[in-house]
Formats: sequence, C-alpha cells, structure tokens
Amino acid sequence: MNELSWPEYRQRILAGAVVFLPVGATEQHGHHMPLGVDVFLPMAISKMIAKNLDGLVAPGLAYGYKSQPRSGGGNHYIGTTSLSAASLIGSLKDVLLEFARHGCRKLVIMNGHYENAMFEVEAIDLALQDMRCRGVHDFKILKIDYFEFIPEKTLQMLFPDGFPGWALEHAAVFETSLMLHFHPELVHMDRLVDEQPANFPPYDVYPTNLGPIPPSGVLSKACSATAAKGLKIADDFDELITMSIKEEFGIA
Amino acid sequence: MNELSWPEYRQRILAGAVVFLPVGATEQHGHHMPLGVDVFLPMAISKMIAKNLDGLVAPGLAYGYKSQPRSGGGNHYIGTTSLSAASLIGSLKDVLLEFARHGCRKLVIMNGHYENAMFEVEAIDLALQDMRCRGVHDFKILKIDYFEFIPEKTLQMLFPDGFPGWALEHAAVFETSLMLHFHPELVHMDRLVDEQPANFPPYDVYPTNLGPIPPSGVLSKACSATAAKGLKIADDFDELITMSIKEEFGIA
Amino acid sequence: MNELSWPEYRQRILAGAVVFLPVGATEQHGHHMPLGVDVFLPMAISKMIAKNLDGLVAPGLAYGYKSQPRSGGGNHYIGTTSLSAASLIGSLKDVLLEFARHGCRKLVIMNGHYENAMFEVEAIDLALQDMRCRGVHDFKILKIDYFEFIPEKTLQMLFPDGFPGWALEHAAVFETSLMLHFHPELVHMDRLVDEQPANFPPYDVYPTNLGPIPPSGVLSKACSATAAKGLKIADDFDELITMSIKEEFGIA
Amino acid sequence: MNELSWPEYRQRILAGAVVFLPVGATEQHGHHMPLGVDVFLPMAISKMIAKNLDGLVAPGLAYGYKSQPRSGGGNHYIGTTSLSAASLIGSLKDVLLEFARHGCRKLVIMNGHYENAMFEVEAIDLALQDMRCRGVHDFKILKIDYFEFIPEKTLQMLFPDGFPGWALEHAAVFETSLMLHFHPELVHMDRLVDEQPANFPPYDVYPTNLGPIPPSGVLSKACSATAAKGLKIADDFDELITMSIKEEFGIA
Amino acid sequence: MNELSWPEYRQRILAGAVVFLPVGATEQHGHHMPLGVDVFLPMAISKMIAKNLDGLVAPGLAYGYKSQPRSGGGNHYIGTTSLSAASLIGSLKDVLLEFARHGCRKLVIMNGHYENAMFEVEAIDLALQDMRCRGVHDFKILKIDYFEFIPEKTLQMLFPDGFPGWALEHAAVFETSLMLHFHPELVHMDRLVDEQPANFPPYDVYPTNLGPIPPSGVLSKACSATAAKGLKIADDFDELITMSIKEEFGIA
Amino acid sequence: MNELSWPEYRQRILAGAVVFLPVGATEQHGHHMPLGVDVFLPMAISKMIAKNLDGLVAPGLAYGYKSQPRSGGGNHYIGTTSLSAASLIGSLKDVLLEFARHGCRKLVIMNGHYENAMFEVEAIDLALQDMRCRGVHDFKILKIDYFEFIPEKTLQMLFPDGFPGWALEHAAVFETSLMLHFHPELVHMDRLVDEQPANFPPYDVYPTNLGPIPPSGVLSKACSATAAKGLKIADDFDELITMSIKEEFGIA
Repeated sequence: MNELSWPEYRQRILAGAVVFLPVGATEQHGHHMPLGVDVFLPMAISKMIAKNLDGLVAPGLAYGYKSQPRSGGGNHYIGTTSLSAASLIGSLKDVLLEFARHGCRKLVIMNGHYENAMFEVEAIDLALQDMRCRGVHDFKILKIDYFEFIPEKTLQMLFPDGFPGWALEHAAVFETSLMLHFHPELVHMDRLVDEQPANFPPYDVYPTNLGPIPPSGVLSKACSATAAKGLKIADDFDELITMSIKEEFGIA
Repeated sequence: MNELSWPEYRQRILAGAVVFLPVGATEQHGHHMPLGVDVFLPMAISKMIAKNLDGLVAPGLAYGYKSQPRSGGGNHYIGTTSLSAASLIGSLKDVLLEFARHGCRKLVIMNGHYENAMFEVEAIDLALQDMRCRGVHDFKILKIDYFEFIPEKTLQMLFPDGFPGWALEHAAVFETSLMLHFHPELVHMDRLVDEQPANFPPYDVYPTNLGPIPPSGVLSKACSATAAKGLKIADDFDELITMSIKEEFGIA
Repeated sequence: MNELSWPEYRQRILAGAVVFLPVGATEQHGHHMPLGVDVFLPMAISKMIAKNLDGLVAPGLAYGYKSQPRSGGGNHYIGTTSLSAASLIGSLKDVLLEFARHGCRKLVIMNGHYENAMFEVEAIDLALQDMRCRGVHDFKILKIDYFEFIPEKTLQMLFPDGFPGWALEHAAVFETSLMLHFHPELVHMDRLVDEQPANFPPYDVYPTNLGPIPPSGVLSKACSATAAKGLKIADDFDELITMSIKEEFGIA
Repeated sequence: MNELSWPEYRQRILAGAVVFLPVGATEQHGHHMPLGVDVFLPMAISKMIAKNLDGLVAPGLAYGYKSQPRSGGGNHYIGTTSLSAASLIGSLKDVLLEFARHGCRKLVIMNGHYENAMFEVEAIDLALQDMRCRGVHDFKILKIDYFEFIPEKTLQMLFPDGFPGWALEHAAVFETSLMLHFHPELVHMDRLVDEQPANFPPYDVYPTNLGPIPPSGVLSKACSATAAKGLKIADDFDELITMSIKEEFGIA
Repeated sequence: MNELSWPEYRQRILAGAVVFLPVGATEQHGHHMPLGVDVFLPMAISKMIAKNLDGLVAPGLAYGYKSQPRSGGGNHYIGTTSLSAASLIGSLKDVLLEFARHGCRKLVIMNGHYENAMFEVEAIDLALQDMRCRGVHDFKILKIDYFEFIPEKTLQMLFPDGFPGWALEHAAVFETSLMLHFHPELVHMDRLVDEQPANFPPYDVYPTNLGPIPPSGVLSKACSATAAKGLKIADDFDELITMSIKEEFGIA
Repeated sequence: MNELSWPEYRQRILAGAVVFLPVGATEQHGHHMPLGVDVFLPMAISKMIAKNLDGLVAPGLAYGYKSQPRSGGGNHYIGTTSLSAASLIGSLKDVLLEFARHGCRKLVIMNGHYENAMFEVEAIDLALQDMRCRGVHDFKILKIDYFEFIPEKTLQMLFPDGFPGWALEHAAVFETSLMLHFHPELVHMDRLVDEQPANFPPYDVYPTNLGPIPPSGVLSKACSATAAKGLKIADDFDELITMSIKEEFGIA
C-alpha cells in the first residue's frame, strides 16, 4: 500500500480489495535470529497471501505488547522494545477507523506476536463501536494468528516426538524454519546456543523470575529447523489462509 | 536494528551507539509519489547518516498525526492513514522508555512529517519525566526535522524565484527531488498533474474547507524536481546533520 | 479480609500474610450454571488455599474483560457484563498499589476468567513500575490461572477420550464439576441443553460470527460433570497451588 | 443476578426488572466494624428493596474512591483500599453500558460510600452520552445515597441531642446500628474505643493532617448504636426507597 | 501573578509567598446574575485575602465540573459550560505540578463551585504522588470551599427563618449578597424571578428530571440579598480564612 | 459572555452570535512584560473584533501547552505554568462540545500561544467527531493565530532590516508593541535587558539545552517596540480578521 499513490490506492479500495495489516513486535529471538522476526513473518505471509487475492498490505505495526516470559522470554531483554496496552490499543484502533473512512470493508489483522492478541481484540471492539456511531455497519475484520493454521500433519512432520505446545515455540523450530524460507540471509544457524528447553511452572511470577528462562531467549530447541520445513509451512498457510479469507469475504 | 540479534544489538548499545528513530506518516503525496514518502525519506536519511556514526536505525513509526490542509493537504484523502494525538504520544513515549531501559543514552528522532512535531515534544517530555523517576538522568534526544537543515544556498538553487515556505512544500520540489534520489522507482513524474499552487488564507477552517486545496494533493509545483537536486540536498544533510549529531553527542 | 476490622487486617499484614485477590467475570455459563461462575470459583479456591497459609482473601473483582467467542461464547449474551481494557487494567493497578501501601508484599492474583489474563499482566507491570518510583522493590505477585494446575492424571480422568483443549472447556465438564463441588445449589444439571460442541475455525471474526457458537453458550459437553470429579480437582489444586505458593514466597 | 443463569436473567430483564447496582468501598470502619461495611450495607438494602419490586441485584463494586478525612477518616489507613477516579468512573460506565445492551432500562445505583458520589455522576453522564450515540434514549438511572432517605423523626430518635451532620457519621451510630441489624455477627461493640469525636476545621489539608482524626477511625460516638435502631432505619428505607423507585419507574 | 514578570514572580516565590488558585465554573446563576459568578467570587475572595498575606493570585480555572440539579440547577442550561472529570483533574494536576517546579510550597485552592470539590481532591492526590516521585515532599495544599467558613451568627443573620442548607443556596441570598458587595454592576435585582424554591427528592435522576428545578435556575429565594450582607460575609471570610491560612502555613 | 446572565446569553446565541474563545498561556515574557501576555493579547483582540460583529467573548483558557525553547524560551522558567497535551486537548474539546450544545454554530479560537496550535487541532477534530455522533453537522470553527494576519507592509514597518521570523518574535517587537497599545500599564520598557538575540541550531535538544537561550527570555530585541506600532498592528487585525470572519460565516 505504502508504495502506491493515493489515486491508485483509492481505485483498489473502491474495487473491494482486502487490506492486510501486519501487527508485530521488536523482540529478542535468540542469538540466531534478528529482533524483527515478529514483523518480518506476518509481513511476508501477508504479501504471499495478498498476491492470491489482489489484496493490499498496509504498513505494519513494528512494536508490539510487552514480551512475556512463557511465550517470548520476557521483556527484560535488551533489544525487546514494547508498547504499553494503551498505546497499542489506541494505535490499532485509530488505523482501523482510518481504513473504514477510506471505504475499506474487508480487513485482515495478521498477528505475528502472541502477546498482542487480546489488545488487538480491544482495539477491534472499540473501533467497531466507533464505526457504528459513524454509521459504518459492514466493516469486517479477520484476526489471524497465522500459526493457528498449521495442519496436524505438518505439525507431526515438524515435531516427530510430539508437539511441545505453542508456548515454547518462541524462536524455535517453527519460526526459524519460516525465517529460513522467507529471509535466509537473516538467520545464523551457526550461532544457535545449545541449551535445555525452558521449563516453566504453570503460573507467572512478577517481577519476572529469570530462573526458568534459557539465557539465549530460545524457549525450545531450534536446531532441526530447515528452509524446506519453512517452505512446507508457508505452502500450507498459502493454501489454508487464502481459502479462509475467500470464504469469509465471499471472494470467488 | 531490526536485522540484528539481541546480543549484537546489546553490544552496539553498550559501545554507545546512537539510535535513530524515524517517525513518519502514511499520507497522500500527489499522483506522482507513494503514500509512504514521509516514512521512506526519514528512513533513508537515517540510514545514510547512521553509516557515518556507526549508529543504529530502529524500526520507524509508519503512521503519524492527522494531515493538515496547509501542510499536507488535509486528512480527508483516501489513503492518508493517521493516528490520534494520544496514540502517537503514547507509542513514542513507550519506545523511548524502552531504549532507555536498554542502556541507550543518545537518540535521534528523525521526523518526516511536519504535523508530528508537537506530539513528539509531548512524548519526549513525558518519557524524560518517567526516566527521572526511574533514576535515568543522562538520556539525550535530538529531535530533527531534517528539512530545517537545508542551507540557504541549496534553497536558492531549488527555488530560483524565491522560496514559497515549507508550508507549501508538500509533495513538491523538495520531497520529490529527494525521492528521485533515494527511491526513483517509486516516483512517476509523468503522472504529475498541472495545477495551480495552493493559496491558503492565514487561518484554518474546520471542518476542512476543500476550496483552496489542489485536488491532486500537491501544494505547489513539483515539475522542476530532479534526482540531481535530490542528491545535492542529501549531500547537504549528510554533512550537516552528521556534524550536528557529532557535536551534540560529543563524538569525535 | 472484608470481614476484618482494620486493626485485625493490619496485624495480619504485618505478620506477612499472603493476600489472595480473585479476579473474575460476570459471564454466561449456559443454562445450567449462574452468571457468577468465574467469580465463585476463584473465590472458593482462594479461600480453600488461604486456609492452608493463614492468608487473606480480598474482595474480588466481579466484572472482567469482554467474553470472547472461542473461550467464553462471546460478549453478545444477555447477562454477560464486561469491562473495557482500560477500566480493568486501571482498577487492578489501583488495588495492587493500595496493597503495597498497606505493607503487603506477597500477593496472589487468582484469575477465574481466561480473557482477563493479558490485562492483568499490564496492570501488574504498571503497578510495579509505580511501586519502584515510590521506593517499593520487594512486592511479589503470583498470577495464577488455576486451571493450569490440573495434573495430567486428573485430566485423563476428566476426559477419557482425550482433552479437547481449555478453549472449549467453557461451562463444560471442568467448570461444572468444580461448581458441583463448591456450590451444588447453583447448578441445575437438568437444564443442560443437548448440543453439539462448538467447532471454531482457527481465527476470529469481528463483528462476532454467531454461526459456530452453540446457542446455549456451553462450548463442549458438560453432562459427564460430577461433584466427585470436582472434589478430585479441588484436592489437586489444594495441594499443588498451596505448594507453589509456599515455595515462591518462602513459607515453611 | 450473579446466581441466575443467563436465560433466567434475560427473562427477568425482558419483563422490565429494576436492576440494583451496589457501589461500595473497602474502608476502615473503626475497631468494631469490618472493612466491608460500605459494601455490605448497600448490598443488604438493595436486596431488601429488590424483593419488594421483583428486582435484580447485580454484583457490587467492592472498591470505591479514596477515603477522605472528613467523611471516612482518610486514605492512609491500612486496610482502606481505594480506586483512582479514572478507574471508578471507567468501571461503572462500562457496566452501565452493558446493562443497556442487555435491554435493562431501569437501574438503581445504591451508593454506600460518600466519596463515590461525584464519580458516579461522571460515569452516568459518560454512559448516557454513549447510549445516545448507540440509539438508546430511554435508560433511566436513580442514584441513591440511602442515608439521605432517613426521615426527620428517625433522625431525632437516633440523635436526641441534635444531629452532628452526616460528615461525622462515619462508622458511628447510624452505620453501626444498620450493621447490628443486617450483620450482627460482624460487629464487635466491645471493641469500641472511647475517643472524642473528630473536630475538623472547615477546609481540607493535603497531605492529610492526621491531627483532628480520632486514631480509631470512628468520627463520632457509636456507643448508642443498637440493632433496634438499625431495624427502625431499615424499615424506613424499605418503605421510602421502595416508594420512590416505584414512582420514578412507574411501577404499580 | 499574571501581571508580574517572571523575575518578580520568582522573587515572591523564593520569599515563600502563598499562591491562591481560584477554581470556578461558567454556570447559570439565574436571571439576575452573570454566568461568571463562580469565578468572580473565588477570585475576589482570593485577592482580598492574598493582600493580608502578601500572597499571589494565579489565573483561575474558568470552567468547572458539570452542574448538578440539586446544587447548580443542572447542566442542561444554555450558558453553563463545563468540563469532564478527566479534563478538570488533568488541568488542575498539571498546574499544581508546575507550581511545585517553581519552588512554591504553600498553595490554596479557592473553590467557587460545589461540583468541583471531589475532582480537585483527585487532582491533588495525583499531583502529590507525582511530586513525591520527583523528590518534592513538602508541598502543602489547603483546599477551601469558602462558604464553609461562614460563622453560625452570620448564618442566622442571613437566614432568620432557618438555613435551608447549602444545597439550595445556588444563586440565592448568599451568593447574591457577595456579588452585590464585590461586583454590584453585574447584579440586576430587578430581574429576579418570583418562583417557589426548588423541592428536590432525596436522590438524583438521570437523565435530569427538570420537574423540581425552578426554570430561572435560582434554587431558593434571593430577594433578601443586600450588599451590606455581602460585606458582612466578606469581612467574616477576610478574618477567618486569613487566620486559618496563617495557622496552617505558620505565617506570623 | 461571563458577564451576561444565561437568558441574555441564550438570546445572543439564538440570534447567531459568533463566539470567540481565547486560548493562551502563562509564560515568561522577559523582564519587561507580565506572565499573562499570551492571554491578555488574544483576549484584547477578541474583544476588539467581537465588537464589530456583535460577537461574544468566552472566558479564555489561561494555561497553555509547555513553552518550547525556540518559540517561548522553554518550560524551565519559573513562572511559566503549562498544561500537558492531554489536559489541554481535553479541556478545549469539552468546551467546544458545550458551545455546540448551547446552539452556537460559529466559533473562533483565538490562539495567543504558538505551542498550543497542534493540540487545538486535535481538540477540534475530536469535538467535531463527537458532534457528528450527536447529530450536529453544521458547527464551524475558525482557528486563528492572529499574528499570521499581519500584512507584508506592516511587517516591513516593524522590521525595516528584515523579518527574523516568528520563531524569535517571543516577547520582542511585535508582542511588546501590542501590549504597549492594549495594556501599557503592564509593560516596563526600562527593565528591558540588553542581550544578543537567540541563535538556535535547526533542531531541538531534550532535556533543554539552555546555551542558546537569552537568560531574560526575550528571543530577539524588543527595544524598538512602541505603542504606535501596536496601534498600527491592532488596526490591521481589526480590519483583516473581521473581514475574514465575516466572509467565512457569511455575515453581511
């Protein structure tokens, strides 16, 4: 979207284009991956899918909600750069209202950072309330955490010994494989630290207890990640997410 | 910054690197330039200057404050996508506090959108207050509107018939030349609309009076823009902004 | 706590008592259970565990964050009564700061409503920041979603055909069994509606798509719930949560 | 309300039931009464009156605005646990909007804590504004400070030597008598401290001047309180408040 | 203060001057008095008392909290111009923090509008918290509702048939007499409407029930007001408020 | 407006009167001028112009946004007393909504403090959005920075050696001349400090770098200011601003 002029953009919106809004984070992803993984992946996946639908990809939100120990290692890492709830909710709400003003009625929030999800929910709810006050009643939003689209079969291929749960998949096999596929030049498998996976108790401690967090920030082993696995996952997403969007927005 | 791993980033911060934070907008820039000009330019200029200083460029804020008629054509354009004051202030404040937590003490806000400036001021003031409460007293911020660095001589070269003032320079000779230099593939000089420059009264009317705004969104003539002029401006910035930053941060 | 006079309360706090703060919701729980389940359960569990530790149970927050379709049926039900993010975050933050002022240093947030969790995180983070500004550095909070303490063995007992995931466990076997144990007079098993379990796609649609939501609001079958199962779960919690709290707060 | 299932609640709302929302506080009430007085009393009175009208009592707000020296002893007591203005206003506003969504049109705010009143006013005003934007124009709210309903005759019975004003009636004859009536098990008349009544100057000092505040927190003598007096007051309320609500809501 | 240059102001502050901050409202005061009464009176009283103490009078806040039926006739009058809670709290808090930055340590809030009081309390509390974070611990505030200083004897002189309570004294004998004393040119006794005093029930109805409000906005009879009575009240205030301020701030 | 009774005000509003709202600041203006210049001038100019149009002047906002070094000397001066962005935006928004409620449809914001401008823009935008939700679509606002109305000829008269730009005109020739015209008793030309004009770099430094700021707070030489010059400027404003307002509001 950002590379189009406004008349081009307007024409696309008038034609009913789906707008993809990647929402990410700037967050540690171990020694082998860059801080921007949670932006790069939803951006790459958005572009991949937008192509199938003649959709538009809006500039992403590069900063997300505070990283949590059990899903992203915690917000104490140097490099992890996060927003408060109010700022994230407010920014996303504002942007949604602007797309509604443009005439867009089909929007996909492509979330790349687990911790963002509930704040996206609030932003969506507040924006839809405001839209109703302004007489807009047909704006539809899909909120997609892309990793939820991974099929059982692919999950078994990735985790032949059993899936440890998304909680520990931070900077691990799944994300690393996708990065090796989409941005291999930004991954350094040789820098992977050999650590034990994180072993968290079933509750949270504040201020953050650093004990159970592997110092590298990688919550479970990433060494089996490959670009081929990334390609397989990307292909799954390409097919399944496209299909869902078409169905929800009534696109032939 | 976003392409570094956290240990790399930490090392650079510990070594005293200057962090550049581009703050832009998604805003109409006429028929000949894309919506992202106000992000692309501060990002390009930040990267250019960061190279001289071994600095880091943080992910930019891609959405800015609401476009105003007399400086950006107004916020009614389809494509212009803006934040409210609270969201912009909040997001920038949060990010500044995070850089302080990382140990960064030298930060440059590279502003690419005129309307952002006073909200950046508030974000800076609130963040510095909070830092003081947290015991951080040596965080220093330069807030740079890069166009203010243009030397008189270059201004005369750009505007041989007299400078009409920055107000009308939206999407016009200055920005177009810089874009032709940094991102020629995104500029389409053949799409330039031949319109009279905007002629605003010395006050603002709300709701926006569309009368004085050239429909294309270009506030004064851009046809004399060239990549060569853009290169000259960029060279000026490269020299002058670098010099100022070195001086302010005591870099040899 | 609410039944003590302030001198009694002060004495207990000075003696180092753990304070339990139940955070719930007023949310539909099908035809067979009352709107207050998400308050009654964390309150009952807090009281049960506080007894082991000579702890105090503070008045609970009776309203929680907006119910989501995939975890609570959605916020469109008549009876579901929810707070916005700002109000929930603000209220919880205020209360935490008050306990810090009292001299309390050991606090357990006993969460009874899945959707509250991330807003509790923000409240905790903001409160801890403010405490640090006020010179309080030793306030420690455990944030407990009690259902996460259920042991694998009990899970197998509850779900002999395989656990469908917490997502669908709203007003179903787990919660109903606990209510049959703690508040049998408020459960009406004869009113259980015989419906198919919910079958959600792996993403969210806003405004809420009512299609996949069983009209009764029960997301999966609850008919196998019994007070005996509830007792077993309660016993597990009594043992395991008590143990964790003792360990974290260094209580012999 | 909290003990009903959502279909039961819906049926009552559709039938036009009045909803009572008790708003209280967690605040010191001397050595002889518990911290929860300001919740227990409006809750008990709401239930008493709801019975006459087939009304519903919603879960109360257990935390209220910061206690003030001249009406509640001040917010420095250990045990007094208060909300900021923003949180109290926000929470109450949210809840009012939810009741409007349910279809409720007759709501009574039963206030049990003097300091809450003006923040309730703001919450009501903001909620009614939002309701109008959402097309709800017939939502009616009675904001009741129940002590204002006490008849002159009863006042003379309670204070044969002249009424010292509500200001000093914190934890004193009036509240203690009501508690002895509704919750005798929570009152310990033997713990009453023999102190002089508070003698405040006609202005407020901040930070709070502890000088004029009786250390026990009881602002005037409570020793003449009896359950019989409480019964008399309760009977007055039962009659008078019921009558007012019937009249205002047009209930036969 | 506003008529001093900054070096003059600084000198006075360094010498320990008391700062008076009048907080008023723009609110209907019947047919016979202007909208500015609640600003004019605290301003006049502040100036009168400041003279005794060599104090400074800061620019007043001219807009106050929403007028309530039982104390100011209600916020539906054309001319009554009010702030929301958040704006009033925020503005006052900001100003208090600025005075603390200047070095002022003795401040009097002279409140001229009943409805402002609790929002002033919140502003004071938030400001004092922030001051403590900034290391300021000796800032002292007197919050004065001047009408509370009226002595019993003067009250009897004003109301020979018994005092109806401050509630109904809006735009009536008390305020009119003071205005006749301080600003006789702004009072038009000949325009006084002959109405029955307001007769409110002991609770509030929202949206406002106009029934019990005298249409002129005067809540009880003002016809007995005279400049002589105003002078007497002013003299009382001059003596009593001055004395209290001297005592609280230790001024000889 | 503040000196009218509400029925007088209502009559004027019903007759279509233009309302002028002066928005100022309490800010240092050198040794020779008082802290209130930014309120006194817009107030005086509003009154002057309102006379031509039978308009109303509302109570001004006496506190404005934080003074910036390059336009007002900076916010570190003792005496400069400023609001945060949120308070200024909120207060102005509230007041605009009240005027809309009154029936006013023609409003002029007369801004007297450069730093306020963008926050006024946000307040206007938020207020207009809310008005639309409330069904008000014809409220029109002129936002006037009066100094922008100065004609080229008068500028040459004031600055025979060339205009240094508005940036440095703080407390200098322009403002001092106007004050000598409108409020000569508040100007002390004999206290003018003989300093070099400020020489700022083309960017901002935070925390404020005091180096380039003349200690007196006067950013450029004011010694050539005279009442005669002030009269000339005032006459220009009287003619030109009146003409613009008439044209915009269709007043004959």
